[in-house]
Amino acid sequence: MTTHINTPVVGVVGLGAMGSGMAQSLRRAGHVPRVFDVRPEAAQAFARDGGVACDTLAALGAQCDIVVSVVVNAAQTESVLFGDGTTPGCAASMKPGSLFAMCSTVDPNWSIALEARLAEQGILYLDAPISGGAAKAASGQMTMMTAGTPAAYEKAGAVLDAMAAKVYRLGDRAGAGSKVKVINQLLAGVHIAAAAEAMALGLREGVDPAALYEVITHSAGNSWMFENRMAHVLAGDYTPLSAVDIFVKDLGLVLDVARASKFPLPLSSTAHQMFMQASTAGFAREDDSAVIKIFPGIELPAADKKA
Amino acid sequence: MTTHINTPVVGVVGLGAMGSGMAQSLRRAGHVPRVFDVRPEAAQAFARDGGVACDTLAALGAQCDIVVSVVVNAAQTESVLFGDGTTPGCAASMKPGSLFAMCSTVDPNWSIALEARLAEQGILYLDAPISGGAAKAASGQMTMMTAGTPAAYEKAGAVLDAMAAKVYRLGDRAGAGSKVKVINQLLAGVHIAAAAEAMALGLREGVDPAALYEVITHSAGNSWMFENRMAHVLAGDYTPLSAVDIFVKDLGLVLDVARASKFPLPLSSTAHQMFMQASTAGFAREDDSAVIKIFPGIELPAADKKA
Repeated sequence: MTTHINTPVVGVVGLGAMGSGMAQSLRRAGHVPRVFDVRPEAAQAFARDGGVACDTLAALGAQCDIVVSVVVNAAQTESVLFGDGTTPGCAASMKPGSLFAMCSTVDPNWSIALEARLAEQGILYLDAPISGGAAKAASGQMTMMTAGTPAAYEKAGAVLDAMAAKVYRLGDRAGAGSKVKVINQLLAGVHIAAAAEAMALGLREGVDPAALYEVITHSAGNSWMFENRMAHVLAGDYTPLSAVDIFVKDLGLVLDVARASKFPLPLSSTAHQMFMQASTAGFAREDDSAVIKIFPGIELPAADKKA
Repeated sequence: MTTHINTPVVGVVGLGAMGSGMAQSLRRAGHVPRVFDVRPEAAQAFARDGGVACDTLAALGAQCDIVVSVVVNAAQTESVLFGDGTTPGCAASMKPGSLFAMCSTVDPNWSIALEARLAEQGILYLDAPISGGAAKAASGQMTMMTAGTPAAYEKAGAVLDAMAAKVYRLGDRAGAGSKVKVINQLLAGVHIAAAAEAMALGLREGVDPAALYEVITHSAGNSWMFENRMAHVLAGDYTPLSAVDIFVKDLGLVLDVARASKFPLPLSSTAHQMFMQASTAGFAREDDSAVIKIFPGIELPAADKKA
């Protein structure tokens, strides 16, 4: 294994759908990723095709110039950095001048504060939420919405581009990346709920759902989410690519951000109620398009019997 | 002027932004359109470049095999057909077997009833709402969402294709065209209001609005309306291409349709409230993107001083 003197050692924490794809993209770009997951077998399986499975976050932190954190939320990111009360995190062993890239969807104000907390330990920080789904993560085609100091970007070098087709640089301190990500989730959540509401009204009115889909996806009423998620409804397939409870969480985060500055979000709060209704009605772990199941008095397209 | 024996005589009633473009498309396709508008000078101006300006709806009805009605709503369509109490409409003079094509956005149940009312007079009917805006109407590139009897489609022949790039055939009786159009307006209205809510939150949080626009239009949070209308907000240009009050009307229509079958529409009703708030706050005749002006505590991008 050849490691050029200028190639930073990169670690990836969290080998879920997104993190494993990003680690694969790094490997394809010539890196030998250090990987950690709470399921040790996931890290070992990854390392079989190249890379180094770390047994602990402390070991990973000590080895890496750049740690890319791809966990579910802010609470898990806190554990990755500072430990869970039982085992230590990676922050204590990270070298001064190394970089922590935070890829989760979080409250921007927490991300802003984290930059300052890590600066006290001499660790650079990049606010770097991601978007695009598992397939794009694996092919290096996802999007990163980033913000951070010039020093943090300099340390990151070409590593971001190895993982993402598009790296948006949104500010010279943490926060703007998470803000734009949260606003994207606002629109994504409202659009899924609106798509469900529109399709439900069509079914109530006896409109052929496939014809409705065809017209809307070629009209001014279209959205990325209508086109993507209503295909699941037409197929009667609620296999969770992204679950109802993700939007209970993400729209909740949107509302928390706005509440902190007493800002009204009428549509986001309505859509949040719809996802909570779907979750508590029993569809929490179904695909988020299952929010359509809250509508009464309609018969949804059945799953293809061949499936 | 050569009129082939099989070329139907087509009339267009209502020479507004959409109707005048459709009449132009018919002229370009070799028709000699009979035209009527409540502003006689509009009909005369059109006829100067080809076509026949009719002084009355009765005269237009007597001459035409096909009457295309492009007025604002159901009430105006009633006047076009049956008169306004002072002057007669076109229905009484239309020949048996002629066709009335209704292009307005209306309550589908009214459209269904109109088919039966006209059938009593031997007049064929096409439920044919349109979408796409003035520029597409003028170039023959707009969309028609149609439903009607086989006899109505046979009478229409190639006339629909002369006006629209895409003619969706959604049912063999009236109603489905108007239903799909109403559902398109549901999505369009909710998406404009959601785009405004998202952009407003970005401004509140200090995100650069141009950067936010760039990211969202390349992400899963995008919609046709976000991309189109938020460009107006970035430019600070609220010149009404489509006014706030159009969505007060159209989302009201959406809610009327759903109320008739006691069907809940949480997002549509919330968006309707937002447009009503914008209208009564003084922005009724501004571009519908002015719904963003209901959000407090933000500073919107100013109009380009060069404009």
